[in-house]
Amino acid sequence: MADRLIYLPLGGAGEIGMNAYVYGYGPAGRERLILVDLGVTFGDMDGSPGIDLIMPNLTWLEENRDRLEAIFITHGHEDHVGALGLLWDRLKVPVYCRKFTGALARLKMEENGRPLDSLRIVEPRPAVVEAGPFRVQFLPVSHSIPESAALIIDSPAGRVIHSGDFKLDGTPVVGEAFDPILWHEIAREGRGVKVLTCDSTNVFSTHPGRSEALLANPLLDFVMGRKQLVVATTFASNVARVKTLAEAGVAAGRQICLLGRAMRKMIGAAVETGVLTSFPNTIAPEEAAKLPRGEVMLIVTGSQGERRAASAQLARGRYLGLELKEGDSFLFSSRTIPGNERPVIRIMNWLSEKGVDVFDADSGTYHVSGHANRPDLEAIHDLLKPQILIPMHGEHMHLREHMKLGRAKGIASMVAVNGDMIDLTGERPKLVDQIDTGRTYLDGTVLIGSMDGVVRDRIRMALNGHAVVSIIIDEDDRPLPDAWVECMGLPAKGRSRADLAAQIEAELAEFLDRADPRTVADDGKMDEAIRRITRQVSMEEVGKKPEVTVVISRLAE
Amino acid sequence: MADRLIYLPLGGAGEIGMNAYVYGYGPAGRERLILVDLGVTFGDMDGSPGIDLIMPNLTWLEENRDRLEAIFITHGHEDHVGALGLLWDRLKVPVYCRKFTGALARLKMEENGRPLDSLRIVEPRPAVVEAGPFRVQFLPVSHSIPESAALIIDSPAGRVIHSGDFKLDGTPVVGEAFDPILWHEIAREGRGVKVLTCDSTNVFSTHPGRSEALLANPLLDFVMGRKQLVVATTFASNVARVKTLAEAGVAAGRQICLLGRAMRKMIGAAVETGVLTSFPNTIAPEEAAKLPRGEVMLIVTGSQGERRAASAQLARGRYLGLELKEGDSFLFSSRTIPGNERPVIRIMNWLSEKGVDVFDADSGTYHVSGHANRPDLEAIHDLLKPQILIPMHGEHMHLREHMKLGRAKGIASMVAVNGDMIDLTGERPKLVDQIDTGRTYLDGTVLIGSMDGVVRDRIRMALNGHAVVSIIIDEDDRPLPDAWVECMGLPAKGRSRADLAAQIEAELAEFLDRADPRTVADDGKMDEAIRRITRQVSMEEVGKKPEVTVVISRLAE
Repeated sequence: MADRLIYLPLGGAGEIGMNAYVYGYGPAGRERLILVDLGVTFGDMDGSPGIDLIMPNLTWLEENRDRLEAIFITHGHEDHVGALGLLWDRLKVPVYCRKFTGALARLKMEENGRPLDSLRIVEPRPAVVEAGPFRVQFLPVSHSIPESAALIIDSPAGRVIHSGDFKLDGTPVVGEAFDPILWHEIAREGRGVKVLTCDSTNVFSTHPGRSEALLANPLLDFVMGRKQLVVATTFASNVARVKTLAEAGVAAGRQICLLGRAMRKMIGAAVETGVLTSFPNTIAPEEAAKLPRGEVMLIVTGSQGERRAASAQLARGRYLGLELKEGDSFLFSSRTIPGNERPVIRIMNWLSEKGVDVFDADSGTYHVSGHANRPDLEAIHDLLKPQILIPMHGEHMHLREHMKLGRAKGIASMVAVNGDMIDLTGERPKLVDQIDTGRTYLDGTVLIGSMDGVVRDRIRMALNGHAVVSIIIDEDDRPLPDAWVECMGLPAKGRSRADLAAQIEAELAEFLDRADPRTVADDGKMDEAIRRITRQVSMEEVGKKPEVTVVISRLAE
Repeated sequence: MADRLIYLPLGGAGEIGMNAYVYGYGPAGRERLILVDLGVTFGDMDGSPGIDLIMPNLTWLEENRDRLEAIFITHGHEDHVGALGLLWDRLKVPVYCRKFTGALARLKMEENGRPLDSLRIVEPRPAVVEAGPFRVQFLPVSHSIPESAALIIDSPAGRVIHSGDFKLDGTPVVGEAFDPILWHEIAREGRGVKVLTCDSTNVFSTHPGRSEALLANPLLDFVMGRKQLVVATTFASNVARVKTLAEAGVAAGRQICLLGRAMRKMIGAAVETGVLTSFPNTIAPEEAAKLPRGEVMLIVTGSQGERRAASAQLARGRYLGLELKEGDSFLFSSRTIPGNERPVIRIMNWLSEKGVDVFDADSGTYHVSGHANRPDLEAIHDLLKPQILIPMHGEHMHLREHMKLGRAKGIASMVAVNGDMIDLTGERPKLVDQIDTGRTYLDGTVLIGSMDGVVRDRIRMALNGHAVVSIIIDEDDRPLPDAWVECMGLPAKGRSRADLAAQIEAELAEFLDRADPRTVADDGKMDEAIRRITRQVSMEEVGKKPEVTVVISRLAE
């Protein structure tokens, strides 16, 4: 059987988050595999209440673990590396990444007690990692975190460029500038680029992307224009932004104080790995609290409205001895990720209640995106001239739009979502299989499947309430007349203005009194009847059918 | 004691939604009262799972019902009239509104079996409603629903203009155009305007508002440019928009089909009340399904991603015999209300999966807002020259920004949020009392208070799961050794890879075996001990402390 080159996204295709992309080369069904990225996404109350983290379902990859050569991590964002520590044990192969990413990956591995020697730090191109039939190089790209990389994945079937998350930035403040000559060179090597697997996040942004360096002056003007305390928030991993903010603060005559664990962790990792060669001196919160308000700038975590981050804490009350006051300024140097609007707006209103002036990045003055916009994507298509374009890192509408963009240039392209196995060997991509995917949840300390029913039950209890019915069947197999009903998350009283639990108990007592011995003897029938009565009484009384748990205790042996 | 003029928002101030504003005039504590608007807001999974509607808490008004003269409804949007049917019974006073609003209010009253003769239809100014010490006129304003009105509320302490929701639109397509001369006249009558209570929704929009009429040409161009089926969604109550969309469809040679109950209800009410004098002929869905795709335009409900509305149904599958296909176009002629991003994006992705091209109103080409923007608010301040400005209809940050805008012009202003009683008699507004407010929930068919704990329990079950423990104490006051544990919304297995419920049962069996008779005799102590053990085992096993319900059955009398 002829060898083939395959692509199989397990996460990140048809969604923005939990990236995990498999490539394979070899005879069908026996391809040697590599995995690119292993990220998380975050749950929400709507779809996954109580869930701490959401990860790709690796079942297929575990079943084919003997075929897996290595994991490559493009960069250190949570949606690319966040699941590494939790899931590495299921794969147990070497992990390759660049130095800064490695510093973050190391923390993930340590937290979960994974062997650190499986982490291999790689220099960028021309260094090559051999992984089965693949030869992989890390190609530096600009993004909103240091040392992002695209991957040059060479296989006997040709060259794949896996873009990772990227933008075209000639002046990225921290890290390597976009180098079109280098990209041109890569496009011309050997047989050129067979496949471009490409970030689609900003395909709907029609203006060319803007450089990180453009923010220095507006941010300086902003801080200069403030008289009282200035607070700025951004993603801690956006080291370039944190640096620009800090330098603006210093240039405006202020002392800088970093707040939030992630902020200190990221800047620490950046200094330690040599990514950040200069950063202004910072002061501790206790010191900041003692200085006049006009001489301090806080740079804090929590730009997405996270409940426990520094932004939320400061907005609600005192935090580490610091308190915001009338006339202070709070800058969101960040974009609100769709879905996080409510928590961010909540913080803005808390700040408003304190009399703090809030500035957001909606105008674009105080924020630039880390992803390539539509014209930048077109520029990369033109530069790399791939035979095939596979859009990734996007919801379905982003992937489809990106596909159309590629096709309009005559590039073969298709939408591949999580679970779609695509054969890239021929001139056009071809769907050859569909793998069951789904998601893995971290719930407390346990990994569960998204289809296990645990979360479904939580959502049902949240929407409908939960009624618990306890019944005792005596030694003579007769039910005791008193059913005991406890309601949780249900109105205490309904239409008849009497206690809902008592109403259900009364109706159940009647049923138990009349119940056929054959029904009583059968747990299944009892459960069904009790459930039905409970839901019916509740529906009549309060207009809701609760979830019902029936506990039947039989005193006979 | 001197008479005073008071203002007390019970909803809508410090939030966008569930508007309810009280005005009073008379001796302190004995003011005669009127209520302006009685709206709802919608719940979400984050804060109010399972709740159907959220309304103001009217406790204070009920306690002072003998002082309440009347209710005035400014317009027919749900956040202004939605709670009328549900809560009227608590107030039982006449309800005044204009004709179109009345047609919608009537439906609310009917649904809840309220007496229709309490509804009084009022002509606009110069008609006057006398309500205790108040003389109230309805002043037509433009908004995104027909026959919106500001209220001119004259009291012995002076004139209040309660703006309602409004924009300045000289060409509103349906309904009365903004008439600056009329407003000028109102400002000059008598002693002028003492208080302007004013819509703050768009205070952060810095460009002048745009007229509804501006959309006709872009919408026509849009429809003309499509070859296959065209679907457009907007709020059904935006009758002018529905008309503009339908006329664009007809001009482009298409037949119009309205989908969604609200769409037909609103257009029906608009025709019936004479608000809409011309509207293109429409066809039934069955007819539309038979026509060539290029000859049909659907105008549908569900612009906010509502799960059961026509947009969602069409995006997911067939609906009334209609099915979207590759190459069809779907236009959101609407803004996504903050918080609704996720459901709207979900629909866009479903449409993308069907190959439908989606167009949103982000660019402003296909949508204009129904609220006055910042320059329009300034124009109204200048026109009315109020002594006092009270910002309303906004979250805290909107109210504060609006206050600053007023103060910058030398107008006395303050932020008043729900529950703040403001004395408007003097030159400056003064906080004189704070009323406990909160919210009333419609849960199924029952009204409950937001602080009743019902929703809190639901959220806790959703986040932590629910463990139910059933214990039997025998006739001799000894616990039976077998505790019965049922877990809902908890992982089946944890750290020790054994069944979680069985692990808890084992630990409880040990406790029951050793339990002191005095503990066993005491329900409270038993409950506490069992709860503690259950949470502890669960924490060790799965890293979560569930909600626990303990049912203790005592066989002794």
